[in-house]
Amino acid sequence: MTQEAIGRQLRSTVKKEGILELSLARVPTPEPKPDEVVVRIDATPINPSDLGLMLAGADMSAAKVSGSPQDPVVTAPIPPAALRSIAGRIDQPLPVGNEGAGVVVRAGSSDEARALVGKTVAILGGAMYAQFRTIKASQCLVLPPGTAAAEGASCFVNPLTALGMVETMRAEGHAGLVHTAAASNLGQMLVKICVKDGIPLVNVVRRQEHVDLLKGLGAKHVLTSGTTFMDELIEALAATGATLAFDAIGGGKLASQVLSCMEAAANRTAGGYSRYGSTKHKQVYIYGGLDRGPTELTRNFGMAWGIGGWLLTTFLQKIGPAAAQKLRERVAAEIKTTFASRYDKEVSLAEALRLEEIAVYGKQATGQKYLINPNKGLGR
Amino acid sequence: MTQEAIGRQLRSTVKKEGILELSLARVPTPEPKPDEVVVRIDATPINPSDLGLMLAGADMSAAKVSGSPQDPVVTAPIPPAALRSIAGRIDQPLPVGNEGAGVVVRAGSSDEARALVGKTVAILGGAMYAQFRTIKASQCLVLPPGTAAAEGASCFVNPLTALGMVETMRAEGHAGLVHTAAASNLGQMLVKICVKDGIPLVNVVRRQEHVDLLKGLGAKHVLTSGTTFMDELIEALAATGATLAFDAIGGGKLASQVLSCMEAAANRTAGGYSRYGSTKHKQVYIYGGLDRGPTELTRNFGMAWGIGGWLLTTFLQKIGPAAAQKLRERVAAEIKTTFASRYDKEVSLAEALRLEEIAVYGKQATGQKYLINPNKGLGR
Repeated sequence: MTQEAIGRQLRSTVKKEGILELSLARVPTPEPKPDEVVVRIDATPINPSDLGLMLAGADMSAAKVSGSPQDPVVTAPIPPAALRSIAGRIDQPLPVGNEGAGVVVRAGSSDEARALVGKTVAILGGAMYAQFRTIKASQCLVLPPGTAAAEGASCFVNPLTALGMVETMRAEGHAGLVHTAAASNLGQMLVKICVKDGIPLVNVVRRQEHVDLLKGLGAKHVLTSGTTFMDELIEALAATGATLAFDAIGGGKLASQVLSCMEAAANRTAGGYSRYGSTKHKQVYIYGGLDRGPTELTRNFGMAWGIGGWLLTTFLQKIGPAAAQKLRERVAAEIKTTFASRYDKEVSLAEALRLEEIAVYGKQATGQKYLINPNKGLGR
Repeated sequence: MTQEAIGRQLRSTVKKEGILELSLARVPTPEPKPDEVVVRIDATPINPSDLGLMLAGADMSAAKVSGSPQDPVVTAPIPPAALRSIAGRIDQPLPVGNEGAGVVVRAGSSDEARALVGKTVAILGGAMYAQFRTIKASQCLVLPPGTAAAEGASCFVNPLTALGMVETMRAEGHAGLVHTAAASNLGQMLVKICVKDGIPLVNVVRRQEHVDLLKGLGAKHVLTSGTTFMDELIEALAATGATLAFDAIGGGKLASQVLSCMEAAANRTAGGYSRYGSTKHKQVYIYGGLDRGPTELTRNFGMAWGIGGWLLTTFLQKIGPAAAQKLRERVAAEIKTTFASRYDKEVSLAEALRLEEIAVYGKQATGQKYLINPNKGLGR
């Protein structure tokens, strides 16, 4: 029996009593089929998009831990309102982790699979918070020689989302972008892409210190909320012509304010009064939910507007496999520059379940980015 | 000088002091160019889409009238918040009235124009609350013989909007429609179109008596708000598969509720839990603003959703002139059946400016539909 026959895997279970349970299961690693490989996951990031599945809307301030330090079990109550929307996952232990990177330690019989043995690859597909992951060889993105797993751990979610924003802008005929919560790991990538590709970008950040961070990357327009926010936003929108925004916040009035300011900017150059507002279509896509509260729209932005959800997987399906592969290849080629991620802390699977760590990464704040190394501290 | 050389025209002016002024101007009727005709307007409806321009958000409960019964001048204060959004029209006397019908009384020199003399035509293009309207011959829709002007007065706004909803549904790949404020003149047309064309339609109405009205036209699904509203809506959406809604209300929680119920209906047939919700795109278009207040979205409907403005003119531009003409011809052919409008009261231009009439039609309530006859009571 090989060392990868059994591995630890982080599981998130919603009990029907309304309790979230996080634990480390010991699971058999599936034998690779001819076209599959087994990857030893050495690095997997905690992204905001992982936390929804992992924490299930539970009240983590009331979480408790039991078990041993090497084998912790975390439980936390889930408010009834949150429970209703996740009824479909009750009593199913779900694996977590969208993406990761590591070394191919075993392969199926196909040439394509066997060629990957020993290579460091990046993979996307869930269940990455685990020591081992069996996956199709065709889903592995081989990292350039000299790239560590930690450097390639975030090859998909943030890089492809940032590239997806730019591609969506082009496909829908907009001249520039607005991005909120723009100091995030993803936001920093978007700044670098837009600087490189010459795309007008308006960044809205939550804290003053983030202004310097993004300006240091070459961002021209970086705004924080405050008394002059709306005026500054109108100026930036008039200067850039941006009529498409990607919003990570979701709740509150920000999306509405962005549309109002786009309308005000458009009306500066409009030829005379139109009671239906400017004819230029103004769009906000909500791709995150840092604020889970209601979105409030004050409809003072004419009739040519839209708000909607934006999801990476839907976008990739829409553009098709060939276009998606082109984006992935750009990510691999620029993984140490445009798409470099910085992590504030590396933890093992067991450490990721410490309440004091959850309290930090659960905030989803810039400057508190975590990387899990599922094979750390196991004495291998 | 012909009798149509000078005509009365309703004007709406926003004074910079924040006062709305409605009056009847005496304006010279423009001489028809070779390709133009002069139409004597005998019937022009008061649609919700006219009232925004006409009343300019003024507080009509504080309106005053001066002048003579034949020559009234109505003034009313505009709240500061409403005034900001209409800064572009200050001190410009604007004509009102999107559509109307009447007899061609004079024509330019072209054959096309001269062929229309004496014909009853329907026209769209603003400034219809007037005795006469000079307009391109090509913009005239000749009504079938035996059709009175009153019968053809509403050939465009409501009929084309209702047809536009159905065409939008087809173009965007939805299987059925939801319509709110569905007992309106427009809503009744939509019911008749959907019955005739076999399109699943869910009607949401504001009052119990409207249920019978729409069921009498053949509607299958008619819901009123109430304690079981959400459950009934989910049932109707599951039965119809409708994932596209047209909302005339705009403000409040209704649009959000419709999306939530669409998601619940979609999840009945979904294969297992997905944390991003159902993959079927759910869309609400806001085409009216009966509630001018904020739209509140509780985002419990996954990621495949959109909300946006919908405007008839934008839709017609998108489908192009040939497709638009086809829709217009259907309206003319079915003007006494599918697209028949019922009016509760006919008034002259001067009567339309009586405060007691404004108080009634200003409510935009079903059963209080007004028709203006600009040539009524002028002793012609």
